[in-house]
Amino acid sequence: MSQSTNLSVARLLITCQDKPGIIAAVSAFLKNHGANITELDQHSTDPEGGTFFMRLEFQTAHLDLPSENLEKVFAEEVARPFNMTWQLHYAKNLKKIALLVSKHDHAFLEVLWRWSRGELPIDITCVISNHPDLKPQADHFKVPFYHIPVTEQTKPAAETKMLDICAQFKIDGIILARYMQILSPKVVQAFSHRIINIHHSFLPAFVGANPYQQAYDKGVKLIGATAHYVTEELDMGPIIAQDVVRVTHRLTVEKLKELGQNVEKTVLARAIQSHAEDRIIINGTKTIVFDLH
Amino acid sequence: MSQSTNLSVARLLITCQDKPGIIAAVSAFLKNHGANITELDQHSTDPEGGTFFMRLEFQTAHLDLPSENLEKVFAEEVARPFNMTWQLHYAKNLKKIALLVSKHDHAFLEVLWRWSRGELPIDITCVISNHPDLKPQADHFKVPFYHIPVTEQTKPAAETKMLDICAQFKIDGIILARYMQILSPKVVQAFSHRIINIHHSFLPAFVGANPYQQAYDKGVKLIGATAHYVTEELDMGPIIAQDVVRVTHRLTVEKLKELGQNVEKTVLARAIQSHAEDRIIINGTKTIVFDLH
Amino acid sequence: MSQSTNLSVARLLITCQDKPGIIAAVSAFLKNHGANITELDQHSTDPEGGTFFMRLEFQTAHLDLPSENLEKVFAEEVARPFNMTWQLHYAKNLKKIALLVSKHDHAFLEVLWRWSRGELPIDITCVISNHPDLKPQADHFKVPFYHIPVTEQTKPAAETKMLDICAQFKIDGIILARYMQILSPKVVQAFSHRIINIHHSFLPAFVGANPYQQAYDKGVKLIGATAHYVTEELDMGPIIAQDVVRVTHRLTVEKLKELGQNVEKTVLARAIQSHAEDRIIINGTKTIVFDLH
Amino acid sequence: MSQSTNLSVARLLITCQDKPGIIAAVSAFLKNHGANITELDQHSTDPEGGTFFMRLEFQTAHLDLPSENLEKVFAEEVARPFNMTWQLHYAKNLKKIALLVSKHDHAFLEVLWRWSRGELPIDITCVISNHPDLKPQADHFKVPFYHIPVTEQTKPAAETKMLDICAQFKIDGIILARYMQILSPKVVQAFSHRIINIHHSFLPAFVGANPYQQAYDKGVKLIGATAHYVTEELDMGPIIAQDVVRVTHRLTVEKLKELGQNVEKTVLARAIQSHAEDRIIINGTKTIVFDLH
Repeated sequence: MSQSTNLSVARLLITCQDKPGIIAAVSAFLKNHGANITELDQHSTDPEGGTFFMRLEFQTAHLDLPSENLEKVFAEEVARPFNMTWQLHYAKNLKKIALLVSKHDHAFLEVLWRWSRGELPIDITCVISNHPDLKPQADHFKVPFYHIPVTEQTKPAAETKMLDICAQFKIDGIILARYMQILSPKVVQAFSHRIINIHHSFLPAFVGANPYQQAYDKGVKLIGATAHYVTEELDMGPIIAQDVVRVTHRLTVEKLKELGQNVEKTVLARAIQSHAEDRIIINGTKTIVFDLH
Repeated sequence: MSQSTNLSVARLLITCQDKPGIIAAVSAFLKNHGANITELDQHSTDPEGGTFFMRLEFQTAHLDLPSENLEKVFAEEVARPFNMTWQLHYAKNLKKIALLVSKHDHAFLEVLWRWSRGELPIDITCVISNHPDLKPQADHFKVPFYHIPVTEQTKPAAETKMLDICAQFKIDGIILARYMQILSPKVVQAFSHRIINIHHSFLPAFVGANPYQQAYDKGVKLIGATAHYVTEELDMGPIIAQDVVRVTHRLTVEKLKELGQNVEKTVLARAIQSHAEDRIIINGTKTIVFDLH
Repeated sequence: MSQSTNLSVARLLITCQDKPGIIAAVSAFLKNHGANITELDQHSTDPEGGTFFMRLEFQTAHLDLPSENLEKVFAEEVARPFNMTWQLHYAKNLKKIALLVSKHDHAFLEVLWRWSRGELPIDITCVISNHPDLKPQADHFKVPFYHIPVTEQTKPAAETKMLDICAQFKIDGIILARYMQILSPKVVQAFSHRIINIHHSFLPAFVGANPYQQAYDKGVKLIGATAHYVTEELDMGPIIAQDVVRVTHRLTVEKLKELGQNVEKTVLARAIQSHAEDRIIINGTKTIVFDLH
Repeated sequence: MSQSTNLSVARLLITCQDKPGIIAAVSAFLKNHGANITELDQHSTDPEGGTFFMRLEFQTAHLDLPSENLEKVFAEEVARPFNMTWQLHYAKNLKKIALLVSKHDHAFLEVLWRWSRGELPIDITCVISNHPDLKPQADHFKVPFYHIPVTEQTKPAAETKMLDICAQFKIDGIILARYMQILSPKVVQAFSHRIINIHHSFLPAFVGANPYQQAYDKGVKLIGATAHYVTEELDMGPIIAQDVVRVTHRLTVEKLKELGQNVEKTVLARAIQSHAEDRIIINGTKTIVFDLH
């Protein structure tokens, strides 16, 4: 099991203008209230007037006040003076996730499999698909499956239904495991920076249909995948994780696709892990990912 | 020293329509003339009517006829019946290379350094640059340096001069080690599939100026490099080698550039090695690279 | 699905003393009988009197004689003159595998999961374990589970029982997915070079108990895994596949173990794939692995 | 040029027993004296009574007191209360290095080459060798070369001479770039945790002579290198950096050695970089390496 799933752990994510004294103020505050800091990572875009980002992980066992009060006091004593944007998460509150998929099952099943094995500290509460095909697989993992067909005409209604289901399950975030519909701004805004998508990536990039065929025709030596947060601009949201695999001329288009899907699976899993452990802070068009390795 | 620089070695590269019997015919021919095959690698795009590619490396010590005759007999007895396109190279004939560079010295010096250390089995006969800056470095490695300034007006004359120098040195190929001028079709055609270029590569690709700044702004997690043969379509020629390095939000634009240049250096060196050892066959828009690892 | 699971494909593996004409003889033979060679890979330890290894993959659709006859004629016309050791396998005959496991489920479940997803072209016919714990998981994947406890006293009887089960299922090979008993020479010889084991590997190697604790204490920067064929000398059989993952001081012993198990899973899967597709020839204490990438 | 070679930068390395308030105390101290923290990285072996390690990099331009005073005040106000072991380094004071080598030139020349290119922020003041062979190469890079032959009898005298030279150049540390003599405890203690060595590493490890031959015989699929600090126990000091390269059966012993030397070069360079930028803290038998990527 992941070392970060220790249930008496909290994570504090902070963004503010950089100036001297931030780390001192935050760590003194936590110390004074009985928190033991177990991980601290920080980043500054520029020590002179840049933006400062910090992630702290701390033990909550010996806190001297309940968590609601901790947040209130932190807001007043630390966050306000430094004009911080901040979040506090407790590891025991697994993020409630809706898993969206169309027909390709490779990323979808990998997420369910790793999750069922305890490797992904999230709570997959439901599967939503615009096709009925993968219901048996969702059933197999005992996750409720909702078939919501989408056509150009029905898209607004379908998305309303989707948002209703998300509301019903108190969804914190959405994972697109090869969901082949473009989400409208309404959905993207409702889960801003909480929707993760995975797609293939190539050097160079290939625009248009059938990118693996293009990669084959071009004889690329690497194929890869990118996991990113979804924004209104298609496939251009902040990148969370990327990886590549080496390929050769010996591989058919089919085999390239197979290897590409394997990279998609591992990159998506890595992105979910970072997201689930509150290791990511958004910085405009990009991410700060405070990973351990 | 590379294991392929054994001087009594020859390499036969073959392309033809696939049909049964090619390997048998070629290997029987070589056997009958006293050649011992030490490496054989082949590839077929489709066994039913696809294109067939083969590379053989063989010892020439016990050949029963001189190399000119070998080629003539091979042409008649094997190549013609199978309608082969083929090349025969001898390892002892190092390819004569012109190294082109502008002002960035990282790839340029890496090639000269590795070459001076005996790691690249080529013969760097001259350096040609549109700037005078790197003459001392060329002098240091005892390679003649030609400064040929290029402006929009003087480009045709400059390229003529460049081709003259290449003719004078009996150049077999050109390495662009960050040469920032676009070669005209005249030069590209003169050294078709014998000009190697290196450039940075990103996931996704960034168009326009200052790609490292764009990569930084976008927060990419991988930066890479691509070595390819130059064709008339800019940066779109057949890819020879690619690699990436993992990066994080902690790295400045300057540091991204530094790491990117390191990848460029190793990818260019790898591409030169494959080219120098006759491991590459062009297949339309792509390469077959018969590397050992 | 893997490109090598094309069911009308056969694979010929050859070992013999190197001398000119082998490739010619084999490929001419196959051509003359209507086989189209789709992959050919070969290796020679030394062209002058070394050992020669070759793997051919060919389409069987247009063979001019049934497979039994093909083997007989090949034996007489080609294998005997060159004094070859050889094997001919048909892709449609998936290897029948017994999966052995003790209590650690990570490698075990990964193999079952990938197999159930069609990624491993083998036939897992039964699970044998010296503990009852993983029966539910075997049931889940609908594979018969045999609990054969092993103590020092009962080991001979237990192994006899194990061999009986293997005989009953006509087992071709055994995969040790963290089976913590040492197999006796009787079992090893019965499945010589057909038992695959996976274990962790470190730089440097750590002898004795709790290697992950030792790796942690030593502060290694890489942890890895090795898949190999089992021989009578413990963990010293021919290596099939190896890989490593980068680690840092931030990771606990538990997290190192988790990452190490992930590497074990991927390395074991890769080794099984190579074995299943007949890509491996044993050369004394080592392997020749004719992989595609 | 490396982003850490900014000359108005200082680095503070701290080790102490973990307890709440350390980060607060250190960062408040630096803030109060006008330092802007640009990098902060910390690690705790156990928040409850474990050992705490921290590295801070800060701008010195606006310090309100000279560096001698800063150290004195820090010692009194911060280090003493927390019983810290600590070091303060200024980037402008490049570490003075003696480069030791025997006859193998690959690691030696790589260090000199990268250093001459400005890639390694150290000051290579002299080369010491037990053989005269590499003097021309040292001359080429304009570094004084000292030939100190070593035999069993002359070793004590030779090491005294070596230490004299180190004293004369005010050496801070030693890099063993394939120096094939074992340093006596006297030298090791004189430069405790300031001597870096590089050696090949294999999975599994091979004891005895000619490890590349053993690796070849064993058919390993990865070969690697380890850089470590030298301690009195041979090749067992704290590991700084490790890497591997993938190899296949196609490679000769010579080629394995060549690839292994390439890994040695890059791993040694990486270790020197981390050491030069004060990114390493020793924790008993292991290192904490606060690298950026």
